[in-house]
Amino acid sequence: MTSTNQHIQHHTEKNQNKARLLISCTDKPGIVAAISTFLHEHGANIVESNQYTTHPDEGTFFIRIEFAASDMKEKEETFQEGFKEIAAQFHMKWRLTFLYKLKNMAIFVSKELHCLRELLYEWESGGLMADIPLVISNHKEGKELVESFGIPFYHIPASKEIRHEVEEEQLKLLKEYDIDVIVLARYMQILTPHFVSTHPSKIINIHHSFLPAFIGANPHKRAHKRGVKLIGATCHYVTDDLDEGPIIEQDVIRVDHRNHIDDLKKKGRLIERTVLNRGVKWDLEDRVIVHQNKTIVL
Amino acid sequence: MTSTNQHIQHHTEKNQNKARLLISCTDKPGIVAAISTFLHEHGANIVESNQYTTHPDEGTFFIRIEFAASDMKEKEETFQEGFKEIAAQFHMKWRLTFLYKLKNMAIFVSKELHCLRELLYEWESGGLMADIPLVISNHKEGKELVESFGIPFYHIPASKEIRHEVEEEQLKLLKEYDIDVIVLARYMQILTPHFVSTHPSKIINIHHSFLPAFIGANPHKRAHKRGVKLIGATCHYVTDDLDEGPIIEQDVIRVDHRNHIDDLKKKGRLIERTVLNRGVKWDLEDRVIVHQNKTIVL
Amino acid sequence: MTSTNQHIQHHTEKNQNKARLLISCTDKPGIVAAISTFLHEHGANIVESNQYTTHPDEGTFFIRIEFAASDMKEKEETFQEGFKEIAAQFHMKWRLTFLYKLKNMAIFVSKELHCLRELLYEWESGGLMADIPLVISNHKEGKELVESFGIPFYHIPASKEIRHEVEEEQLKLLKEYDIDVIVLARYMQILTPHFVSTHPSKIINIHHSFLPAFIGANPHKRAHKRGVKLIGATCHYVTDDLDEGPIIEQDVIRVDHRNHIDDLKKKGRLIERTVLNRGVKWDLEDRVIVHQNKTIVL
Amino acid sequence: MTSTNQHIQHHTEKNQNKARLLISCTDKPGIVAAISTFLHEHGANIVESNQYTTHPDEGTFFIRIEFAASDMKEKEETFQEGFKEIAAQFHMKWRLTFLYKLKNMAIFVSKELHCLRELLYEWESGGLMADIPLVISNHKEGKELVESFGIPFYHIPASKEIRHEVEEEQLKLLKEYDIDVIVLARYMQILTPHFVSTHPSKIINIHHSFLPAFIGANPHKRAHKRGVKLIGATCHYVTDDLDEGPIIEQDVIRVDHRNHIDDLKKKGRLIERTVLNRGVKWDLEDRVIVHQNKTIVL
Repeated sequence: MTSTNQHIQHHTEKNQNKARLLISCTDKPGIVAAISTFLHEHGANIVESNQYTTHPDEGTFFIRIEFAASDMKEKEETFQEGFKEIAAQFHMKWRLTFLYKLKNMAIFVSKELHCLRELLYEWESGGLMADIPLVISNHKEGKELVESFGIPFYHIPASKEIRHEVEEEQLKLLKEYDIDVIVLARYMQILTPHFVSTHPSKIINIHHSFLPAFIGANPHKRAHKRGVKLIGATCHYVTDDLDEGPIIEQDVIRVDHRNHIDDLKKKGRLIERTVLNRGVKWDLEDRVIVHQNKTIVL
Repeated sequence: MTSTNQHIQHHTEKNQNKARLLISCTDKPGIVAAISTFLHEHGANIVESNQYTTHPDEGTFFIRIEFAASDMKEKEETFQEGFKEIAAQFHMKWRLTFLYKLKNMAIFVSKELHCLRELLYEWESGGLMADIPLVISNHKEGKELVESFGIPFYHIPASKEIRHEVEEEQLKLLKEYDIDVIVLARYMQILTPHFVSTHPSKIINIHHSFLPAFIGANPHKRAHKRGVKLIGATCHYVTDDLDEGPIIEQDVIRVDHRNHIDDLKKKGRLIERTVLNRGVKWDLEDRVIVHQNKTIVL
Repeated sequence: MTSTNQHIQHHTEKNQNKARLLISCTDKPGIVAAISTFLHEHGANIVESNQYTTHPDEGTFFIRIEFAASDMKEKEETFQEGFKEIAAQFHMKWRLTFLYKLKNMAIFVSKELHCLRELLYEWESGGLMADIPLVISNHKEGKELVESFGIPFYHIPASKEIRHEVEEEQLKLLKEYDIDVIVLARYMQILTPHFVSTHPSKIINIHHSFLPAFIGANPHKRAHKRGVKLIGATCHYVTDDLDEGPIIEQDVIRVDHRNHIDDLKKKGRLIERTVLNRGVKWDLEDRVIVHQNKTIVL
Repeated sequence: MTSTNQHIQHHTEKNQNKARLLISCTDKPGIVAAISTFLHEHGANIVESNQYTTHPDEGTFFIRIEFAASDMKEKEETFQEGFKEIAAQFHMKWRLTFLYKLKNMAIFVSKELHCLRELLYEWESGGLMADIPLVISNHKEGKELVESFGIPFYHIPASKEIRHEVEEEQLKLLKEYDIDVIVLARYMQILTPHFVSTHPSKIINIHHSFLPAFIGANPHKRAHKRGVKLIGATCHYVTDDLDEGPIIEQDVIRVDHRNHIDDLKKKGRLIERTVLNRGVKWDLEDRVIVHQNKTIVL
């Protein structure tokens, strides 16, 4: 499948000696010193880092570090093991990813294909660093498009009544393909708490409004009725509370009195695919930490 | 007072032969022909016009026409009278304004001065075509600033208990100064239905959120809690339903995880003054028609 | 070919009784009256109109009118003939288009497909009202994509040496398919003055910089060297002066110190396709008038 | 003077235990480890840090660190001295600033006051952390405004002929007031290489175009002639090459065919003050490093 995607292969090779650390923990003196000394002692060089500590009253420490080391593949275990100790010492939540290994991203879609398309093109042109081992849909509309990229398309019809069976089948596939990230690219089915709990902070959704305005159904119809001058889209992680998950990215587009509901939908599609694209990209680049139902984007 | 404002004087002189028509009515064939023939027969030339008719199902006609005629002052009554007939024929809601006469704009303010300041500077640099005969405030903070522009400042302390008396005093002043437009530039008192009814579609407010998100109090605190990535401001006409009036203009500004509530307020002030400025400008230029709790901006 | 595009068919049917007038001429009193009276007398109703007259010193009149009439198809010739007289009277440059007839748009492309893709998807989702009878390319990269939409793809290799022959072949195809608009969607060949002269104000190009910054080759390399904080794209009509034609639309995207030339190219692709899309859309909607190497967008 | 500015006093007190490091040097392994270990050993805690290393081929290391320590004032010399050693070891260019000490900012202005005003208001509302000990102008227009803030206003008439004497007088004042940053807020005189050399990367200018488009005089006139759809402003450090210094920030605003040169100037003023405000703010927050005629904004 990825044989067709030279951009990603090229990028992966070029960055085979790079890795990324994404950490959050209660702030304490000496964290940066401990991490950077460890990396230095193991021959790694920090390429880029961003760190942020919340207000002293609360004191949570967040850092994203991109580092390079020759022969990273051979050293992978050394870094993993060595870093475990530091993480234990500071009670860190952490993630260490190696750029030579691509993440596996699954895309869920229904009838509307604009978000799926944007992701596939961005992926093809090297903008999204991941493998896409499969696309799952409750409709057949996307089949031809997906398969033209050499990606397997799974058609799993869904409805409220068979939700449990559908999710079982989906979860089986996600496991089989070893999926790291699930993107709901206008997937019009509600996921059960069970499904969500299997992938905490790993399911990304796009909502077609500027949340918290127009939570729920028919946001464009309601936006038209209210006479707003901008409509938006919100990319967020999925939690059990519908439309209430941590927001990764939002943006808006201008509308005016000449725009009927259909025009709002058309303009909305443009801003939806733009915002989802950005949110997924940041997630794949290990830039996003979830903290208290908000995101830190480093 | 306007002796200090050469920009406005200059502009008024340059445009002394111009006038504007702002019309809405049920659509019928022949409206544009009737208006343009009338103007042509009375020696007027159309400089700019924008017309829009809502979807056939509803069929409301809106037009804004800017036209020029030599000796406009002498012809003012001719145009007023002549146009009355056309208006009657088509059952129009209409407004005919002559650019040599400035509108009278009153500004209401409380303690926060950023919106007042923006309006005064935009006015001074020729961006807002109006006279500002007075500023009314329930606090003293703005006094020095306002008087430095040669504008009378009326300090009328206000509270729930004396709302009635306060509004009586305000309405007396508005009448005395023959006020056309009232701008609430972060005026932190609720107006009674009686006050609002005296100036339908003539009271402009700035709300410090992207409505309908965060209707009501403390929008920045709630925006911070929700973790939004953009905050906004909404300029709207005041109606009896708080924060539910027809929206004239909205815009947003980017925020991130590093921004505490105070930062949101600071960034909010920037977008508030920008949006209010734009909304007031459009209103003064006779660009805004209210229709079914929405605005048509021509 | 258009059998696959239900959005456009649907839109064309819905608007079969609509037409558009796009006019420019020296300003004189009575133009709007003459046009609107003519339309009214022939049973047409103005749906939307925008008019603008340049500064009195120069005095050029521009108008775009969208009007509706029952049985428009039958009345087409009546409108065409009748309007000829008015046009003659006021020495107008004018265009009268009927919405039931789609314009024929040809797309020229080379190796980079992002702009072509954006146009095809926007077209498929009903955002660009035109027929696309063919795509011409000097490379083979776009073949599969284009044909997947049921559109003929003509591969005409090109080089300086055979420019004349290549253009002959292209012109023959444009004539055969009765092309109204040519879009250069990152077509990397220079057109001869002869070619350009055959389609005045009908060839739309996308330049990968915010003109007039970085006119000519390698704009991203030079933007990187200069350390700009925004990069842009410019959609313009092609004239004999390279990169000097009338600008239809421009926009920018933020870059920072972390972005290498490759990143600028990647971000540039996003803004290029967005800007080209918008410019082509406006042209197809008869919104753009060329006047003295500038555009009036109504 | 600063007695009137409670916002800044409050902020300075709240941050009296904070300091900032801004560093650039050739990249080597172990820099972050050395810095963070040093800070940790001296009881300092990193609050926020951003680090970036240019492409391996070139390999320049940049970091901005904000750190806190109890009793910072007493430890100031310890940090200064201790850090000198690390800096020497890695051949760093560096700057260590303590937030309890405000920078001294001088503003130069001519007749147009919009940028000066924006800076003064932003400063008054706590958005620009600096003292403003003086404003220098070659005209008298700004006197009243500046003195209303309790800031001394120096009127030094200037012309080509007396450039040398004028600059001597200016330099004397800058020395007397111990100025750290000079902001040219639409100061319409060219500075000599001598003047510029006395304050390398410390003179901030606002140019009224989106550089490198419309370098030099009359950018709005030329933008109008070219028919651009956006106009911009560029905030940059002053070097001997006019309009060629390292760019700190740029932004644009939309214009259209209805805008004459005067309208472009008016819209330009809005984007100029916005962009200058942002650039100055970043400089005062020690976010900007100049590197090879570009800026790294951390």
